[in-house]
Amino acid sequence: MIRSFVNGAPGDQVSILDRGLQFGDGLFETIAVVDNKPCLWEYHVQRMQADCGRLGIAAPDAGLLEQEARTLIADEQVAVLKITVTRGASERGYKPATDVAPTRILALFPWNGPCSDPLKVSISSQRLGHQPGLAGIKHLNRLEQVLARVECPEDVDDALMLNQQGQVIEGIASNLLLQRDQQLFTPSLHCCGVEGVVKRLILEMAKDQGMAIRSGAFTLDEILRSEAMYLTSSLAGIRYVSRIKGHDWRPAAEFHPLLKQAAAQVFN
Amino acid sequence: MIRSFVNGAPGDQVSILDRGLQFGDGLFETIAVVDNKPCLWEYHVQRMQADCGRLGIAAPDAGLLEQEARTLIADEQVAVLKITVTRGASERGYKPATDVAPTRILALFPWNGPCSDPLKVSISSQRLGHQPGLAGIKHLNRLEQVLARVECPEDVDDALMLNQQGQVIEGIASNLLLQRDQQLFTPSLHCCGVEGVVKRLILEMAKDQGMAIRSGAFTLDEILRSEAMYLTSSLAGIRYVSRIKGHDWRPAAEFHPLLKQAAAQVFN
Repeated sequence: MIRSFVNGAPGDQVSILDRGLQFGDGLFETIAVVDNKPCLWEYHVQRMQADCGRLGIAAPDAGLLEQEARTLIADEQVAVLKITVTRGASERGYKPATDVAPTRILALFPWNGPCSDPLKVSISSQRLGHQPGLAGIKHLNRLEQVLARVECPEDVDDALMLNQQGQVIEGIASNLLLQRDQQLFTPSLHCCGVEGVVKRLILEMAKDQGMAIRSGAFTLDEILRSEAMYLTSSLAGIRYVSRIKGHDWRPAAEFHPLLKQAAAQVFN
Repeated sequence: MIRSFVNGAPGDQVSILDRGLQFGDGLFETIAVVDNKPCLWEYHVQRMQADCGRLGIAAPDAGLLEQEARTLIADEQVAVLKITVTRGASERGYKPATDVAPTRILALFPWNGPCSDPLKVSISSQRLGHQPGLAGIKHLNRLEQVLARVECPEDVDDALMLNQQGQVIEGIASNLLLQRDQQLFTPSLHCCGVEGVVKRLILEMAKDQGMAIRSGAFTLDEILRSEAMYLTSSLAGIRYVSRIKGHDWRPAAEFHPLLKQAAAQVFN
């Protein structure tokens, strides 16, 4: 870690009573910093505010966040900025105190910067739980992802995670897109998964161009029969998958033109 | 909070890099202290060790935990001891460092002590997710319980939580037992829920007496047609439910003799 702020002041500790620690009662954003700028900043702030709304946590002021982020980033050209917001510290027990005040953590980490190499993935044996009430939110309850990452072989970049029915949902820390007959598809995240900001960028660019990206349910077999598969995240950008479960898997189609355009904007 | 230890030393802070905060990557125990003794101590330690095993976290040494617990409790006669164990602190990202060392937190809180009043409950609109991979574990991913508690009316003690199929699973912080024709039943926790230590005590006492407590799936209607319903937890003990969703609901049977015996042992 390069440096960090806790509630606006330099610091790297929180109370053991913080509900982020007690219950995972909060959410986070992982933001690429490139050319001294936090990428897709508006999207990250908007998602954080929307997720705070769903969890009933008072969202931090966008202007304050931006000011703190700029101070923290200072003259770092390339880095990762992680923002964590929790419901705050309160005594033992699930019920928050009525006067609980959210905790705001901004931390800056070293990073090698964007990369466009295709990704090697495995298939995780850890399935995502079925929980529509929390689906889509980038909250702090991430044991599924931790267990998936722990079992990941050393030579892969990510792993595909399936839901309880065996449909492929996303990577451990990325969203998934498939290509078939030049059309793009993405798994529905109504029952599990995290709605990523790069996915949002792609969906909005598609909409602007009058292009439909349908969401649906896809089995692993269907995924493996697609022309191309892409994983997207704030740090990975938009990347081909080129190896699955130890087998080379060559995309049968050129990098989709829309995704080429979007990829150019992720770190812009 | 009365006082606390972090990794054996007096303290009440953890690093913002602690994976308990980053991902809810850990577990906890809530232990009643009565007459200066931590109740059901062996059961709590055994569950924590078993849960650590399932999550791949190095479990703290039982002797060390006991020594720290006794030092922390000191001459407090009645209190709540909370033990939290996380995978430890590591840099950003789901993958733990290979040399990650677990964080051990013991904290003592004020408490009014055991109570045997019947409980008033509501029905939570927050459903439990379907996740066999994490079911039973008292881990730190507890957003479902937080959201259930936040929506709880002021005049109830607990709320019944249903699974995705509408079957009743447990209270927000308690296990559930039903009585029918003098027989006891309890919802299966294979797909969600927390295996409580008081439930274990009851199941073991039943086994010793050659009595079967069957586990199964129960709809809310079936629950409401039972002769009696009980909630169990380390702090609540074993209690009748006497009010559901604003309606008085009188148990149609005497407090079950086995549960009377077990109740006498919870805080012993």
